[in-house]
Amino acid sequence: MADSPNCDLQSLSPLQLFERVTEQGEKVRALKAGKAPKDEIDAAVRILLSLKVSYKTTTGQDYQAGLPPKDLELINNGTTKEEDEDLVDPWTVQTSNAKGMDYDKLIVRFGSSKIDTDLINRIERATGRKPHHFLRRGIFFSHRDMDQILDAYENKKSFYLYTGRGPSSQAMHIGHLIPFVFAKWLQEVFDVPLVIQLTDDEKYLWKDMTIEKAYEYAKENAKDIIACGFDINKTFIFSDLDYLGTSTGFYKNIVKVQKHVTFNQVKGIFGFTDSDCIGKISFPAIQAAPSFSSSFPQIFNGKENIQCLIPCGIDQDPYFRMTRDVAPRIGLPKPALLHSVFFPALQGAQTKMSASDPNSSVFLTDTPKQIKTKINKHAFSGGRDTIEEHRKYGGNCDVDVSFMYLTFFLEDDDRLEQLKQAYTSGELLTGELKKVLIETLQPLIAAHQEKRKQVTDEMVKQFMTPRKLAFEF
Amino acid sequence: MADSPNCDLQSLSPLQLFERVTEQGEKVRALKAGKAPKDEIDAAVRILLSLKVSYKTTTGQDYQAGLPPKDLELINNGTTKEEDEDLVDPWTVQTSNAKGMDYDKLIVRFGSSKIDTDLINRIERATGRKPHHFLRRGIFFSHRDMDQILDAYENKKSFYLYTGRGPSSQAMHIGHLIPFVFAKWLQEVFDVPLVIQLTDDEKYLWKDMTIEKAYEYAKENAKDIIACGFDINKTFIFSDLDYLGTSTGFYKNIVKVQKHVTFNQVKGIFGFTDSDCIGKISFPAIQAAPSFSSSFPQIFNGKENIQCLIPCGIDQDPYFRMTRDVAPRIGLPKPALLHSVFFPALQGAQTKMSASDPNSSVFLTDTPKQIKTKINKHAFSGGRDTIEEHRKYGGNCDVDVSFMYLTFFLEDDDRLEQLKQAYTSGELLTGELKKVLIETLQPLIAAHQEKRKQVTDEMVKQFMTPRKLAFEF
Repeated sequence: MADSPNCDLQSLSPLQLFERVTEQGEKVRALKAGKAPKDEIDAAVRILLSLKVSYKTTTGQDYQAGLPPKDLELINNGTTKEEDEDLVDPWTVQTSNAKGMDYDKLIVRFGSSKIDTDLINRIERATGRKPHHFLRRGIFFSHRDMDQILDAYENKKSFYLYTGRGPSSQAMHIGHLIPFVFAKWLQEVFDVPLVIQLTDDEKYLWKDMTIEKAYEYAKENAKDIIACGFDINKTFIFSDLDYLGTSTGFYKNIVKVQKHVTFNQVKGIFGFTDSDCIGKISFPAIQAAPSFSSSFPQIFNGKENIQCLIPCGIDQDPYFRMTRDVAPRIGLPKPALLHSVFFPALQGAQTKMSASDPNSSVFLTDTPKQIKTKINKHAFSGGRDTIEEHRKYGGNCDVDVSFMYLTFFLEDDDRLEQLKQAYTSGELLTGELKKVLIETLQPLIAAHQEKRKQVTDEMVKQFMTPRKLAFEF
Repeated sequence: MADSPNCDLQSLSPLQLFERVTEQGEKVRALKAGKAPKDEIDAAVRILLSLKVSYKTTTGQDYQAGLPPKDLELINNGTTKEEDEDLVDPWTVQTSNAKGMDYDKLIVRFGSSKIDTDLINRIERATGRKPHHFLRRGIFFSHRDMDQILDAYENKKSFYLYTGRGPSSQAMHIGHLIPFVFAKWLQEVFDVPLVIQLTDDEKYLWKDMTIEKAYEYAKENAKDIIACGFDINKTFIFSDLDYLGTSTGFYKNIVKVQKHVTFNQVKGIFGFTDSDCIGKISFPAIQAAPSFSSSFPQIFNGKENIQCLIPCGIDQDPYFRMTRDVAPRIGLPKPALLHSVFFPALQGAQTKMSASDPNSSVFLTDTPKQIKTKINKHAFSGGRDTIEEHRKYGGNCDVDVSFMYLTFFLEDDDRLEQLKQAYTSGELLTGELKKVLIETLQPLIAAHQEKRKQVTDEMVKQFMTPRKLAFEF
């Protein structure tokens, strides 16, 4: 029965659903304790997540172990007890909590540091600029050694930025922009070089895709990245398939990392198995190598000790934990990191958006009409089932995807706070909140599309040509 | 007792030694049957080999299972029953037979084909040239798809040659020249391009060596290779560390191979374990990739279907068995191969020469005096203990290292045959045979040293610069 959770779930009472979730949770725990095959555990976790969504839909509240459903009373400050089921690696992000990951717990688990008010204030003092709303709103929430970067910066020692993207499809969705929007801001306020890696080799290795297709996607994605407005004199975008064959510095760092990481280690970090191809097994070194300035002799004049700061999604942290572990053993500085939260799927914060499901995302290629339809149809709402109930109890911003998206894309702090209060109090209806999001995204995406049209193949070629940038090292 | 075979072995009677060898052979078999750890088996095999050498030294004959020693009667056509203990992979070559490997058995085990008289005659007809003495004397003894190469050649379809070297030290020994001497002859008679890979990345990964040192060795070794007399217009020598960063074609083929080989496969082929670094695990793809003409777009005008012929030591075959397995799955032609026997160590044909043991080899840097001393002192003799016995029973060319070396380096067939008969009959003494070898090698090595002096850094740079060669594709 627990194996087919979708049949007749809607006819169950909240208590019956509660029991079903509890039962499935126990099953997952038993599978894990018995070291069952990963496939089996994953399948059971998916059923559990799906049951919890049904429970949430039916009861309007998150499932809490040991706490049977109360009569539609919202538990706004409730915490989930199932946080152990959060899955985070470069390929899987899964949580049972409709609010998304428990990021404080993730910081403890990953051993990183929280970006707190002190650090944000220090960035403001160092740069003389108001911190980006991604910092103010906790979208970049965790870091490694950002204080070192600031120490050095305050002592007039430069650094460089490194971020990247796996070009798995031609079209990018708005979530893909987060690291680039933030990297652009960091580049502007610190005035430093930025390198952007397009891991077309990774996509070729992981997907059913030719090398040519992966490289084509890399160049297409480069257009979207360039459209963010990067300065060509300060930014180098590279495809692995391309750059590896044009830079001896890059390959030398790759092979250095590859010498100092064993299969046991990547097995532990990334979950590789003996059946994985040797390309996957050695790939982590390719994502690690741009963390070292000697991978870009043309930019850093051959210097190998320029420190690197990596803004990226927290799901990419495993690569850089490995990199930081290796760095001192090959005599190179550890990269510093700034981690962002996951960008939620339209369907809810339990998973991150996926480029392979067109309805999970708003794409940079979507028309105004598509944007409107997608948001109205798919954006998970924290509102009530009826207008009457909504007016009475108010909506829940913590799980409302439209509100979450606004925290990413609506820059006006006051307006965002007003919306939050109005929605929570029941004054603002779900449809009205969605309208604000639609009206925020439509011009943003239209402007992006306009800028992208102006990006020529020649510009892509220029950005992707290894060269000196406008910095002396 | 069997664990310390060197104590008092000389005081044992031939029969006692025979029993000791038999006992140790059984121990090895039991360890293998019980799937004991590789270390333990290797240790036991080493003891076994050492016991057999003692047996051979004492009795003047090879140990044969089930055949107790006869009264100093030579078993000239004896075959060893312990051929299962032959170890052959790119890092280990070990046999218990003083004549060296049983190559016919190796052909069966590796699934390659014997280079027979028919094939040698066909090469002679196709090229109009007398086959090289490496072919006539079975030094290149095994092949894969050489008939295909000849079919194509007879139909005016070109191919290219690929060979290589792992630059583990500055000085090369004379055994290292074999593939180059033969590649040069093949290049001359077929008039085709030749690419020579220096796997400096491999040496960095396997040895306790910096990247810089490995690259330096590669350039030093290139000088010795160039001194063989290669035509700069027809030959491209490359270091992996260098060329990987200058050719997009090369990396693309590497990643293609890496996608189609699993860890399970390289574990099976090369014996890698979970504790090996990911660089070693993915390296086989780097040795595989030059088998495909698209790794050299500058030479082959971007064509990816030019067939490759690889002359190499049989110990390198595992790499190319893997390559040939992958080739059709990535839509590229399988490379053909010509396999040479192992070049024996001065101490005997049980192992191949090693650059790390100066006394196991005659080096290309040795002085005439060093050559003389090494051969007189270390070359394992198939002669008798006393002149009287030697005159009476004659020497054994099958195990005599000086004679073996002469088969490699004395080009005159008639003279070699005379020496063989004179040595076997007892007419020629060991010291006299050694003198012939010394007088053969001294001028060869002196001439090599002279040519090497003329190789400038600029010439090395030219040979190692990716460029078009004197062929149209």
